[in-house]
Amino acid sequence: MNDVVRALTDALGEGSVLTGEAVAQRATSYWDAAPTRALAIVRPRDTAELAEAMAICHRFDQPVCTQGGKTGCAAGAASTEREVIISLERMNRIEAIDTIGATATVQAGVTLQALQEAAREHELLFALDLGARGSCTIGGNVATNAGGINVLRYGMMRNLVLGLEAVLADGTVLSSMNEMLKNNAGYDLKQLMIGTEGTLGIVTRVVVRLAPLPTSCNAAMVACADFDRVTTLLQRAQRDLGGTLSAFEVMWNNYYTAATEPGGHRPPMPREHPFYVLLQAEGGDPGADATRFERLLEQTLDSGLIEDAVIPQSETERRALWEVRENFEAMLAGRKTFLYDVSLPIRCMADYADEVAQRIHARWPQGRAIMFGHIADGNLHLFVQPESPDADHDASDEAVYGPLKAIGGSVSAEHGIGVEKRGWLGWSRNETELALMRTLKHALDPRNLLNPGRVIEL
Amino acid sequence: MNDVVRALTDALGEGSVLTGEAVAQRATSYWDAAPTRALAIVRPRDTAELAEAMAICHRFDQPVCTQGGKTGCAAGAASTEREVIISLERMNRIEAIDTIGATATVQAGVTLQALQEAAREHELLFALDLGARGSCTIGGNVATNAGGINVLRYGMMRNLVLGLEAVLADGTVLSSMNEMLKNNAGYDLKQLMIGTEGTLGIVTRVVVRLAPLPTSCNAAMVACADFDRVTTLLQRAQRDLGGTLSAFEVMWNNYYTAATEPGGHRPPMPREHPFYVLLQAEGGDPGADATRFERLLEQTLDSGLIEDAVIPQSETERRALWEVRENFEAMLAGRKTFLYDVSLPIRCMADYADEVAQRIHARWPQGRAIMFGHIADGNLHLFVQPESPDADHDASDEAVYGPLKAIGGSVSAEHGIGVEKRGWLGWSRNETELALMRTLKHALDPRNLLNPGRVIEL
Repeated sequence: MNDVVRALTDALGEGSVLTGEAVAQRATSYWDAAPTRALAIVRPRDTAELAEAMAICHRFDQPVCTQGGKTGCAAGAASTEREVIISLERMNRIEAIDTIGATATVQAGVTLQALQEAAREHELLFALDLGARGSCTIGGNVATNAGGINVLRYGMMRNLVLGLEAVLADGTVLSSMNEMLKNNAGYDLKQLMIGTEGTLGIVTRVVVRLAPLPTSCNAAMVACADFDRVTTLLQRAQRDLGGTLSAFEVMWNNYYTAATEPGGHRPPMPREHPFYVLLQAEGGDPGADATRFERLLEQTLDSGLIEDAVIPQSETERRALWEVRENFEAMLAGRKTFLYDVSLPIRCMADYADEVAQRIHARWPQGRAIMFGHIADGNLHLFVQPESPDADHDASDEAVYGPLKAIGGSVSAEHGIGVEKRGWLGWSRNETELALMRTLKHALDPRNLLNPGRVIEL
Repeated sequence: MNDVVRALTDALGEGSVLTGEAVAQRATSYWDAAPTRALAIVRPRDTAELAEAMAICHRFDQPVCTQGGKTGCAAGAASTEREVIISLERMNRIEAIDTIGATATVQAGVTLQALQEAAREHELLFALDLGARGSCTIGGNVATNAGGINVLRYGMMRNLVLGLEAVLADGTVLSSMNEMLKNNAGYDLKQLMIGTEGTLGIVTRVVVRLAPLPTSCNAAMVACADFDRVTTLLQRAQRDLGGTLSAFEVMWNNYYTAATEPGGHRPPMPREHPFYVLLQAEGGDPGADATRFERLLEQTLDSGLIEDAVIPQSETERRALWEVRENFEAMLAGRKTFLYDVSLPIRCMADYADEVAQRIHARWPQGRAIMFGHIADGNLHLFVQPESPDADHDASDEAVYGPLKAIGGSVSAEHGIGVEKRGWLGWSRNETELALMRTLKHALDPRNLLNPGRVIEL
């Protein structure tokens, strides 16, 4: 046992510091079953213990890797054998729910789903939602500024965080547990911890904003003849549904046909339409909300804005529509696939999609770029399937990221940079921005102890 | 003419640099008619000129004071005779409105109202709104993270800014003109410029988010017997109005009676109720929105949650209700008044209001603390009128700010710190927070050239 691990064990107790086989028997992440590599896993029970652990690491110049639910898509929480892991797994307490102020105060290790359920018990909604809800943690959601399927209506995690507490690189506790929607007393320091992927501090506790629980939910899948009609439909839905539109998920024809191939999902409507949109609205007035939603569909059908519409007649049918959009495992099975999460101005999206498809086709004549995404957020996901033994990841990245630079797009809409996208950060950020990121990192973590090598190269 | 002013004039031309009488003939701010004191007023026409001016100031170690509309409430834009003013007055161009992405790109010197009107021409809403709309600028709104009357629904300015460009202390241009709702490519550097009151950079251009223009507006003034009923009404309105509630303004009895004294506003309802609430909802479905709004009022009247309700029957009547809330000049005329803008958890608000009233009364038996505010945001405004020749501002501050510390309240909800509240910043922020603010200031502006002395003491 080396000196720093001994010091950590002396300070926190043996049960709080795992080493050897107890480390190796854990998987690296949700995406990587390889054994975890690390000097030790420290599992503090509260902020004071975590601060003490970080002060020790600081004294020994020991780099740390912070772990929440390990579901991140950019390998930011994959540790190296030279790092000590700080795991938030035992800091998973929901401390308070304030029904008057509509806030919740939680430790960072609480899972997203646990918070959603606790809020629901008080007839309140914690609006962040994404596929990893059962495993991902609120601290990780803060660190990665998580997005997901409700961003259009409620914003990203940044917009839901009112206050937070974090441990800085030297073990200092930064407590900014603000509970109010408005607080302009000096710099808003929590912004330093949101979306910086644990490189400037370790989030330990969070105050989040809750919303009233919707009492109505209306959904439909519709088909559009071209992308212009898709964006016009989005504008109409936003205006006519009066702030209740909560999801607007677009599938290109190649996504829809792949998802509904024989053996896959039953197609809710014919497979020849160029675009499919799954839209959903949630409100507080069940009768009027349903009337308004159906009126929108009727009017857009009559005017030719949409070609076809399927309205689910039960919760089971509504779930089946969502399955087409969310469950794409069969599409990936047995095929080499590169996954992407980009954002770009909506007005550029149709041309961008065409250009990427052409680039992929030029490189791999049998290949395809399957497209879908949260279009209202400017967020497109792509599955590039080269269908070729010459399946070079870099060439695929070039095809997908190349056209983004000229149109101000981003190589990461919601997944963050972590380690995997670090080499591409310069395609979305200019030299001045990168220099300023380094200035911040140097100012807050001059010894480069917090998640070193993630996000930016120093 | 001193060296720095000569260098600025040589670089930008005489028309761009005002000195002497041309400086003194301008008022210090909207609130202070005294002549402006400054070495010069620099009026760049674009970002390149502003960057050049800042590079010159940096070379001469010359402090600058940035001015937008000069309507700020904390004297942040009041210059000293040792500063050069950078005025954004000639950078007032609306560059683009993207109706598909629902964004606007503007120079920082555009007034809030000009942007609101430009958006409206495209049937879009720029949702920030506050009394100074005709004079305040978008750059100032960003620098102070402006709040106002729509925060409940649309968030503060921070939530409306997608991208920005700023000139740093050494004249470097930081361009982060993101247009997407989602962009997690590294640190979100615009957060450094939002709400930092020009102390870390000078905002030159901004991309903001627009919303669909509402097509319905329903308002009412209601009366409640106690504060518990006020907060229960807020919860009911948020739930039942399905996301359309846009304003929830509360007036304590002493505000309402003062506003409706003989010679003031005509009282819309009797003056004996403990609390009055002006609530407003804006949606996209005029018929159903009105029905739902009226149903809420009927149900809450029936259940005793509200005592009385007035629904305006015309736009003129609706404006008259808002006048009671917004036009309080008569209440202040001829009376020594100290103004406050605090925020605190809503659950603490009734007790806090009582305690402040008692403290004021104990200090000045004839005095009063008039209260009203954006309650849903945790934001309370107070007018303290000592009605005494012994009208000590510090004693009043003590009475208002004193009880905030224990309940996690803020000495500034939306007005910022500027110069005037700097001495009280420590009541809302702890030593670790203040130290981290200084770390940021040192990292981005080591020579302390940008709005020196504002927000934090170094």
